[in-house]
Amino acid sequence: MADSKPSLYTCLSPALLHLYDLSESSVVIIDVLRATSTIATALHNGAQSVVPVSTVPRCIELGLELGGVTAGERDGKVADGLEYGNSPFEYPPSFIRDRILVLTTTNGTKLLHMALDNNAEEIITGSFPNLGAVCRHLLERNRPVLLGCAAWKDRINMEDTLFAGAVIDKIGHAFHINCDSSHFALNLYRKAQKDLFGFMRDNNASHYHRLMGYGLEKDIRFCLEADGANVLPLFRGDRLVRKN
Amino acid sequence: MADSKPSLYTCLSPALLHLYDLSESSVVIIDVLRATSTIATALHNGAQSVVPVSTVPRCIELGLELGGVTAGERDGKVADGLEYGNSPFEYPPSFIRDRILVLTTTNGTKLLHMALDNNAEEIITGSFPNLGAVCRHLLERNRPVLLGCAAWKDRINMEDTLFAGAVIDKIGHAFHINCDSSHFALNLYRKAQKDLFGFMRDNNASHYHRLMGYGLEKDIRFCLEADGANVLPLFRGDRLVRKN
Repeated sequence: MADSKPSLYTCLSPALLHLYDLSESSVVIIDVLRATSTIATALHNGAQSVVPVSTVPRCIELGLELGGVTAGERDGKVADGLEYGNSPFEYPPSFIRDRILVLTTTNGTKLLHMALDNNAEEIITGSFPNLGAVCRHLLERNRPVLLGCAAWKDRINMEDTLFAGAVIDKIGHAFHINCDSSHFALNLYRKAQKDLFGFMRDNNASHYHRLMGYGLEKDIRFCLEADGANVLPLFRGDRLVRKN
Repeated sequence: MADSKPSLYTCLSPALLHLYDLSESSVVIIDVLRATSTIATALHNGAQSVVPVSTVPRCIELGLELGGVTAGERDGKVADGLEYGNSPFEYPPSFIRDRILVLTTTNGTKLLHMALDNNAEEIITGSFPNLGAVCRHLLERNRPVLLGCAAWKDRINMEDTLFAGAVIDKIGHAFHINCDSSHFALNLYRKAQKDLFGFMRDNNASHYHRLMGYGLEKDIRFCLEADGANVLPLFRGDRLVRKN
């Protein structure tokens, strides 16, 4: 019976998060370009944990305290005072294994803290590189799901919506979906799935242009490819760890 | 040159309206099922004006003051104390010509007042029944546009997004669009346009189900059909009048 399935909702912007009850939900933080793709990659490549923080000063402070690698960008460049950037390619196993990555991002970290404040039962992060792991976990858990798009300064964006659609395409059958945003995301994904990169380009996606302007085509392509870093980042205490 | 064209943005929920600068914009209030479809129909059929109000008591008060027809629904029935409902079929020329319609709606009226508070340069209403008139006006005006979806209690809905997509399909070429929500709406519309009613049904649109549950298939079909009441409702002072 459809009604015995757990619910699944998609929230397309942090500014809409208050509309949803998160208390029984697994909240999937989605920030495809590039925070959650980089988090999956670092954990896949053996990082001990990833600590998401909102500001550069906090990143520097925690980096010292934890002996961690500090990372984050502002306007496409490594932020002043930090060591590394937001690219998944900066975190190969030879560099990141057993280290703590302290990562400052704006949209994704903001949404994660909002989900915490709204008593989310569980918080994980999702991106195309760990699509399979996210889907497997949500199916096994068999409890309500909120797909939370980090968006861009609260504006809905294409890549996070496409990822929500990809999750629904794979596991929507196991959930009860009474949510127009989820149906949109699914339609968009099904239209785009054969060539996500081309779809972003042809539809003039704002973030595509921002990153292409920084010469980051390789990053975009990696971040739109499924299962390249197929682990499940799970938020515990103040950091994301790889679920065993 | 693309940059010399005026901008066009789509706001998918009133909860996102604060992200946009409306001071030079024509704001199109979109509440397809059924407020803005009924407004277009009443004005097309000769109503002198339509006064949108938020609450039932205010509707009764203004109805008495203006000698107008009071209308509005709560949970699919004419609200206590009002005379008529939200269906466009209640307002044929024989009934509504030269009369003032005082209409209480929740989502559409709320968004309209928010647009006023945010100093919109102009406010008009849009729906499939007056799609052609809206497009013609926006092209002639040749100034920035904000397509404002009334949504449902701030949750994004399918029909308002589809209408935004229909406008962009027709006149997007004349505007500079740096807005993922607009590309999103356009993609959705192009996928759905051959059979909007079937698309709403097959995608389990929440409002489709609510209205079908009230036996309103005829209303839904009318509200998804282009140009059945092709006038331009323009907000002046406290009411919507037909643009000459």
